[in-house]
Amino acid sequence: MQELLQRVADGALSVDEALTSLRSLPFEDLGFAKVDHHRAVRTGFSEVVYCEGKTPQQVAEIIASLAEHSGRVLGTRAARDHYEAAQQRVSDLHYDDSARAIWLDRDPDRARADGVVIVAAGTSDLPVAREAELTLDLLGCRAPIISDVGVAGVHRLLHHVKALQSATVLVVVAGMEGALPSVVAGLVAAPVIAVPTSVGYGASFHGVTALLAMLNSCATGVGVVNIDNGYGAACLAAMINRRAGQDRTPAGDHAP
Amino acid sequence: MQELLQRVADGALSVDEALTSLRSLPFEDLGFAKVDHHRAVRTGFSEVVYCEGKTPQQVAEIIASLAEHSGRVLGTRAARDHYEAAQQRVSDLHYDDSARAIWLDRDPDRARADGVVIVAAGTSDLPVAREAELTLDLLGCRAPIISDVGVAGVHRLLHHVKALQSATVLVVVAGMEGALPSVVAGLVAAPVIAVPTSVGYGASFHGVTALLAMLNSCATGVGVVNIDNGYGAACLAAMINRRAGQDRTPAGDHAP
Amino acid sequence: MQELLQRVADGALSVDEALTSLRSLPFEDLGFAKVDHHRAVRTGFSEVVYCEGKTPQQVAEIIASLAEHSGRVLGTRAARDHYEAAQQRVSDLHYDDSARAIWLDRDPDRARADGVVIVAAGTSDLPVAREAELTLDLLGCRAPIISDVGVAGVHRLLHHVKALQSATVLVVVAGMEGALPSVVAGLVAAPVIAVPTSVGYGASFHGVTALLAMLNSCATGVGVVNIDNGYGAACLAAMINRRAGQDRTPAGDHAP
Amino acid sequence: MQELLQRVADGALSVDEALTSLRSLPFEDLGFAKVDHHRAVRTGFSEVVYCEGKTPQQVAEIIASLAEHSGRVLGTRAARDHYEAAQQRVSDLHYDDSARAIWLDRDPDRARADGVVIVAAGTSDLPVAREAELTLDLLGCRAPIISDVGVAGVHRLLHHVKALQSATVLVVVAGMEGALPSVVAGLVAAPVIAVPTSVGYGASFHGVTALLAMLNSCATGVGVVNIDNGYGAACLAAMINRRAGQDRTPAGDHAP
Amino acid sequence: MQELLQRVADGALSVDEALTSLRSLPFEDLGFAKVDHHRAVRTGFSEVVYCEGKTPQQVAEIIASLAEHSGRVLGTRAARDHYEAAQQRVSDLHYDDSARAIWLDRDPDRARADGVVIVAAGTSDLPVAREAELTLDLLGCRAPIISDVGVAGVHRLLHHVKALQSATVLVVVAGMEGALPSVVAGLVAAPVIAVPTSVGYGASFHGVTALLAMLNSCATGVGVVNIDNGYGAACLAAMINRRAGQDRTPAGDHAP
Amino acid sequence: MQELLQRVADGALSVDEALTSLRSLPFEDLGFAKVDHHRAVRTGFSEVVYCEGKTPQQVAEIIASLAEHSGRVLGTRAARDHYEAAQQRVSDLHYDDSARAIWLDRDPDRARADGVVIVAAGTSDLPVAREAELTLDLLGCRAPIISDVGVAGVHRLLHHVKALQSATVLVVVAGMEGALPSVVAGLVAAPVIAVPTSVGYGASFHGVTALLAMLNSCATGVGVVNIDNGYGAACLAAMINRRAGQDRTPAGDHAP
Amino acid sequence: MQELLQRVADGALSVDEALTSLRSLPFEDLGFAKVDHHRAVRTGFSEVVYCEGKTPQQVAEIIASLAEHSGRVLGTRAARDHYEAAQQRVSDLHYDDSARAIWLDRDPDRARADGVVIVAAGTSDLPVAREAELTLDLLGCRAPIISDVGVAGVHRLLHHVKALQSATVLVVVAGMEGALPSVVAGLVAAPVIAVPTSVGYGASFHGVTALLAMLNSCATGVGVVNIDNGYGAACLAAMINRRAGQDRTPAGDHAP
Amino acid sequence: MQELLQRVADGALSVDEALTSLRSLPFEDLGFAKVDHHRAVRTGFSEVVYCEGKTPQQVAEIIASLAEHSGRVLGTRAARDHYEAAQQRVSDLHYDDSARAIWLDRDPDRARADGVVIVAAGTSDLPVAREAELTLDLLGCRAPIISDVGVAGVHRLLHHVKALQSATVLVVVAGMEGALPSVVAGLVAAPVIAVPTSVGYGASFHGVTALLAMLNSCATGVGVVNIDNGYGAACLAAMINRRAGQDRTPAGDHAP
Repeated sequence: MQELLQRVADGALSVDEALTSLRSLPFEDLGFAKVDHHRAVRTGFSEVVYCEGKTPQQVAEIIASLAEHSGRVLGTRAARDHYEAAQQRVSDLHYDDSARAIWLDRDPDRARADGVVIVAAGTSDLPVAREAELTLDLLGCRAPIISDVGVAGVHRLLHHVKALQSATVLVVVAGMEGALPSVVAGLVAAPVIAVPTSVGYGASFHGVTALLAMLNSCATGVGVVNIDNGYGAACLAAMINRRAGQDRTPAGDHAP
Repeated sequence: MQELLQRVADGALSVDEALTSLRSLPFEDLGFAKVDHHRAVRTGFSEVVYCEGKTPQQVAEIIASLAEHSGRVLGTRAARDHYEAAQQRVSDLHYDDSARAIWLDRDPDRARADGVVIVAAGTSDLPVAREAELTLDLLGCRAPIISDVGVAGVHRLLHHVKALQSATVLVVVAGMEGALPSVVAGLVAAPVIAVPTSVGYGASFHGVTALLAMLNSCATGVGVVNIDNGYGAACLAAMINRRAGQDRTPAGDHAP
Repeated sequence: MQELLQRVADGALSVDEALTSLRSLPFEDLGFAKVDHHRAVRTGFSEVVYCEGKTPQQVAEIIASLAEHSGRVLGTRAARDHYEAAQQRVSDLHYDDSARAIWLDRDPDRARADGVVIVAAGTSDLPVAREAELTLDLLGCRAPIISDVGVAGVHRLLHHVKALQSATVLVVVAGMEGALPSVVAGLVAAPVIAVPTSVGYGASFHGVTALLAMLNSCATGVGVVNIDNGYGAACLAAMINRRAGQDRTPAGDHAP
Repeated sequence: MQELLQRVADGALSVDEALTSLRSLPFEDLGFAKVDHHRAVRTGFSEVVYCEGKTPQQVAEIIASLAEHSGRVLGTRAARDHYEAAQQRVSDLHYDDSARAIWLDRDPDRARADGVVIVAAGTSDLPVAREAELTLDLLGCRAPIISDVGVAGVHRLLHHVKALQSATVLVVVAGMEGALPSVVAGLVAAPVIAVPTSVGYGASFHGVTALLAMLNSCATGVGVVNIDNGYGAACLAAMINRRAGQDRTPAGDHAP
Repeated sequence: MQELLQRVADGALSVDEALTSLRSLPFEDLGFAKVDHHRAVRTGFSEVVYCEGKTPQQVAEIIASLAEHSGRVLGTRAARDHYEAAQQRVSDLHYDDSARAIWLDRDPDRARADGVVIVAAGTSDLPVAREAELTLDLLGCRAPIISDVGVAGVHRLLHHVKALQSATVLVVVAGMEGALPSVVAGLVAAPVIAVPTSVGYGASFHGVTALLAMLNSCATGVGVVNIDNGYGAACLAAMINRRAGQDRTPAGDHAP
Repeated sequence: MQELLQRVADGALSVDEALTSLRSLPFEDLGFAKVDHHRAVRTGFSEVVYCEGKTPQQVAEIIASLAEHSGRVLGTRAARDHYEAAQQRVSDLHYDDSARAIWLDRDPDRARADGVVIVAAGTSDLPVAREAELTLDLLGCRAPIISDVGVAGVHRLLHHVKALQSATVLVVVAGMEGALPSVVAGLVAAPVIAVPTSVGYGASFHGVTALLAMLNSCATGVGVVNIDNGYGAACLAAMINRRAGQDRTPAGDHAP
Repeated sequence: MQELLQRVADGALSVDEALTSLRSLPFEDLGFAKVDHHRAVRTGFSEVVYCEGKTPQQVAEIIASLAEHSGRVLGTRAARDHYEAAQQRVSDLHYDDSARAIWLDRDPDRARADGVVIVAAGTSDLPVAREAELTLDLLGCRAPIISDVGVAGVHRLLHHVKALQSATVLVVVAGMEGALPSVVAGLVAAPVIAVPTSVGYGASFHGVTALLAMLNSCATGVGVVNIDNGYGAACLAAMINRRAGQDRTPAGDHAP
Repeated sequence: MQELLQRVADGALSVDEALTSLRSLPFEDLGFAKVDHHRAVRTGFSEVVYCEGKTPQQVAEIIASLAEHSGRVLGTRAARDHYEAAQQRVSDLHYDDSARAIWLDRDPDRARADGVVIVAAGTSDLPVAREAELTLDLLGCRAPIISDVGVAGVHRLLHHVKALQSATVLVVVAGMEGALPSVVAGLVAAPVIAVPTSVGYGASFHGVTALLAMLNSCATGVGVVNIDNGYGAACLAAMINRRAGQDRTPAGDHAP
């Protein structure tokens, strides 16, 4: 843009020609579009592939292309055949059956920040918790999972109060009646990202009951994401955690 | 029936005549219909008037008629004008604005049994808790209300653990995310009657969220009634409490 | 607390006495977790495994671990491959295809209490009734199933009035329009645990219609559990039955 | 049409002119449109006015116009101000507050057919039952109402078995769990028109629960109409009853 | 019963003994229960088997048992493996893949009554129409199917006006927007049994849209059954048709 | 923009200053934002005021401001007190009670284009049809309303076939079962904008049934707008009509 | 008809005979039924086959029959086995896996009109966009697809503003939150046909969220079709485009 | 614990030291309830009063009690009569009609932190935005509102890109199709708290459509709260903002 204006100032470009050029400029050159790249820079990988509804070939192609420019790639809601097709193209890909995630991490030893804690109500909620954990790991956060602390045995949860209270932000994963985020949010002063899961049957309506319960939490400080959306919760948590203090990240993190 | 058979035995009635009589006998005379009276005897009042959708005149008439045969009458979901019409006919009626209940109790000093405990999540749930308390009182149970113990401040609930654990049966009333019955049921070994309330807004859907959460409780021992149905919860609790041991009822209860 | 500690420091209270006092204080390490154990002691098995959403390996591991400490174990909503994996670890496990239950019972001849009666509307509702029956058996209750007594042939139900009226608590299982609990509750003076089933099609919405109908029962004394939740109904019924009178349990029950 | 063809035959109209005329003829002249008049003749009044959403003036105008050509007029879902406006125009109109119906009947002593029986679960369902009764009366059927026979007291219903079994067609009105049509249909061999009502609260969802229950009836021979649609049920019942036998109508009915 | 009374009259039975016997008598002996058998006699087969949710073995057993007492048997919502198991037991069974019906008819040449007409909106609705046709055939009605007359080509429907108007009762089957019953009911003076089908996608919600549309029909004389319930519509239609005039049945129908 | 560039070319503005100015320019100056004004020019009024949820004072202020720059203003979903407040500020405003619309038209005699036809199922749907008509009038289209042509009397609709077929685009308004757009779309080759209305009761769910039915239309060429959204349908219809041919607009329309 | 009238004029047919003939004439001969053929002529193929719910054999038969009279045939929502059966009968059929469409086009080189632009939010929405594109192609429109322009990266969409603004009508396809049509409609002055897709999970409810969002668009000029209904959107767009100006069609299009 | 007591008994630990140790033990009397106070300290007021469902007297009492201990009090979802009753007790209370909030602020000049930005789609969403703004103000944050930037005019939003990108956390408020949070989240790298509002009609279902759209956002970094829950969004935003950096708060903030 500066260049273009300079050329107008220099008389190398007529006003009409400049006008035409300006209109054909991609909008991202006008300032606000930097955002996108900015996000990429901060998150550490350019884009995440939502695999459901794509063919294995499509997924393989996209991931191969991403892997050329980035050492960290994530594919969510991926079936095993998505992975197998992609792995043909990118041999060092990983796959997690329970989290249904494909990922690439070419610098597994880089430093991670602390600050995010994941809480899962029951064993059946672990796949969603695992998706969150994996996403956080790729985003540079080390997030421990506290599990099997459903509200029907509240003393089990209270056992972990200290760990809960030490977190900068919590991701709380629960199905069925989805009450765990309310109880956790009542125990801490940090933001709680609530993730309803589709665990349950009958009137759980594939997670809708948990979702509604979380939206109606009588505790403050709870933000809710879509059912089974461990990925989305992790992104939000990482954003909050990152802002909460560079000091928490171990020295050397952004060094090389 | 016995009489009729006797008359057949005596020859005072022919077989054909007896057959005809038998067919026209109301079914309640055939044994199983005693049930209805049996319930009346046990509950202490013959019938409860569901006032919504009835005119004040209809309610007044029904209550006046019941009050002739019983010293205890209850009208639920009653508006003030129901009460005013009925009070014209039965001068010693009472009305509770918040519980929307009309009642008559001509022996207020009779003994009551202990064993039922009512728990209400918040102050806004008290009208429903009050409907339960009032119904239980008429059914002969003295049920204390523990309130303002929502799950977002679980330590407030834990403060009452002893009282909760001493109950034979609990009525737990909550709106919004409806998580309280799960937490309470995890603390006690007694049956929990869960009452969702319409307290809340937006995605609480007038109590549907609380209802669904309660149906999906991960705790065992929870039975659910309709939204705002303090009356129904009380009836069920009284039935359970009554069976749980005559010994709990203070001496002299059924005496006079 | 300070006082108590002072008295220990002063020697006015022995360590053991202090410990005992402390245990009657609320919570976790301080005793309130006994609740949990208390439940275990009374129900006869420490925990029930909800198998759906767990891998066969996870289920096998959990069940093997439980079977080491308890002679009675239950896994609900279990697929056959859950069973097969678990049976590799615990050879005397049982499996019921229709109830989708895995269970272990190393003292099958122990005494059972009477008092619970299960009613099932139709043959298609039997799997849920069977889950309830099996759970009750493990909980120490012998519960007969009365089936094929749907409301469209009310005389078939009336045929069983005596059996219904003899129960301390009833578990009533129905799909489609879910009307059976209302009719049964009108015939008895005992609590009715209503279990909607997903039997039906079209506007039955996988049991939602039955669930809603049961929540709106015009009969009193009905508590509702989740769709197809025979297990939950059984737990609640056993709790009520147990409280209703030790006298019903055949002699020798708790002896050894 | 005959006239037109005659004029073609007579040469008074050319083929082209006839063709043009034919195309502009209203479709009702071409045979199938007789239906509408046919219905009018059979039902005894040309049209029914659905008053909701119309202004009092609109309703008054329509009713005044209908009253010029017919001695029987019906307005459903009418508020009192609809009636008052219409009564200014047609002085011998009637209004029923509970049924929310305006009607005109200038030959109240005409004969009515028997055969339809209306059953209402509770007192609160009577307004809908009354709308059905009134509609049936205008359609020439005398339909008794059997009320207060909810399924929670099935013996009360059984008391009326003879009356139920004598009907050619039954209109069964119920709110809450909507179970009455199933039980009634199981007792009779005649068609049952089920009318869900909005009586209830909470999870009755203004009649949706009753509607769903009726659609899922395990009894055969049940057809369902919209919530609170006593009028529609009456029309359907009258159609069925009329076909079921002219013999049931008292002599002289259609005479003048 | 008569016998019992006779023995009382004869002194062969004491009043007390008679009383005891009476109470244990099945209720169907007390008059109202004749209904059930009455229905069986009129419909021509004792019971219909709802196969969904039953094992092939259960279905086979029930059908074999019914086939011993009746020459006409029907199983609805049956999978092919239900049929195959049942056919092992009853070799002359039939199966219709599209209607998912098993049936037996050992007197296929018996006379059928006219009067019922089935209308199906599109080819995809034919399986449900076929279930209705088959049920009607077993119930003794010959019902032609008029199909491919959806409301988007209303002239195709008008083509059949004469056939529609000649019917005593119509079964109208439609999915998607479910508008056909309204249009048909506007063309005839006979009752219309509306059957929504699950044909459609997206916002058809497996037939719910068609169901709702039919319940809201602006035409009178429409009764609705459950989604895809061709069987239920046929039963209701047959009841109405049967009442509408014995004269329609060809001579010799019930002669044997 | 041109000016700015000219000043850069002229040396009156440095490149840096130009850059700063450019960034602070509203985006609408950068080309794509002309859209908004373009729409305004074509539709004849800059903005429409959605009044619901605004105070009378807010509405009055906005309308007064718009009326300064435009001779045509529209406020939708306006209550009478919105109008009264606005009329204080703009004395020549109009209000339509049934359409709940406020409008200003200072050139009522300007020419209008033909081509749009509005069809309304019943009298109760007229308010929505009227909102569409009024909006179209302000947008420069004269749209006749054909009403009282519900699908239960299809011959009444067929009577208007010629008028329907002459339209360039149709707005079809219906409540209850919402079937009219399907039937109309089957009769014409033009686009049909379907508007569900909240007319109906019970299972009409305030227009949801009509909405769903329209979305599932088996006819092609149907686009649906929100419930009661006569305004939106009119805007869409005017856009389509305008594109369909300048030739339809009477001469002189855009002249002055 | 003309013939018939001529014969009446000639005296070869009596008036009565003519009347009888007229009544039995199919309605399509009376003028309004030309519509259907008219549509066929304009759209270029007589009928589209909705394959879901039909057997492969039924589909093959219908397509074979259509292919005899038309060089362009379309089958929507077709599975591969529908195609394979049909291809046995019509060897030059095509199949598109992602769009689930079968089609025949015997004049692939015919000219197409410009004017329709398809916009798809993400790669997963492409199958629906492809169905629209294919339908438009058969209807004679060449419609480019702009994809991967979801609202979370609005600058990517703005990049295409010129192409969007050049369209006569747009088909906008989106799943998840379904916001794209609102943003697009705000950028253009042309009608937008919004197609919600079932892309998403959890609270996307198989496209319901996108559908609802589109119906509530705050932008004007948006008409909505059913979830995943690319075909319906294409038909509506083609109708609008066709009317919008013959001038856009390349010369020679309809020539031969 | 025993050990600890032993050491007290042994004099190895003073009472004070033991007390301190005990407090670091989990729960209730043992310290964990500090959490609650901790929240109070950080938020600046002990508790917020949810006024809906409480009587004016109850609200007045609670607020009066809070005002004795705190200079900042907030009551949400308050009607004017709640305010009037409370104002009798606490004369310096404020009330905001649109936000339906009662509040007290006795130190209005205290410093506020920057960092939170509120975005509201339209004027009708302002009451909810105002509730958020007011809550944030009491929590010590100064949050500007950017309004009237709905997605149908995306250039209006882009105008504010700089302000959006400067925020630490954004609260985005929108009704109708609820698309604004997706677009905003795509423009910034900060967390977005999405607040659906009940603005809209018909298929907006009182905010449900906006809620669902927000949960399905294709942008990352979005957490959702209940419909119209400006208060909850503000609490969550304040928590995130507070953690994000003490440096943003103007000097002197916590000084006095």
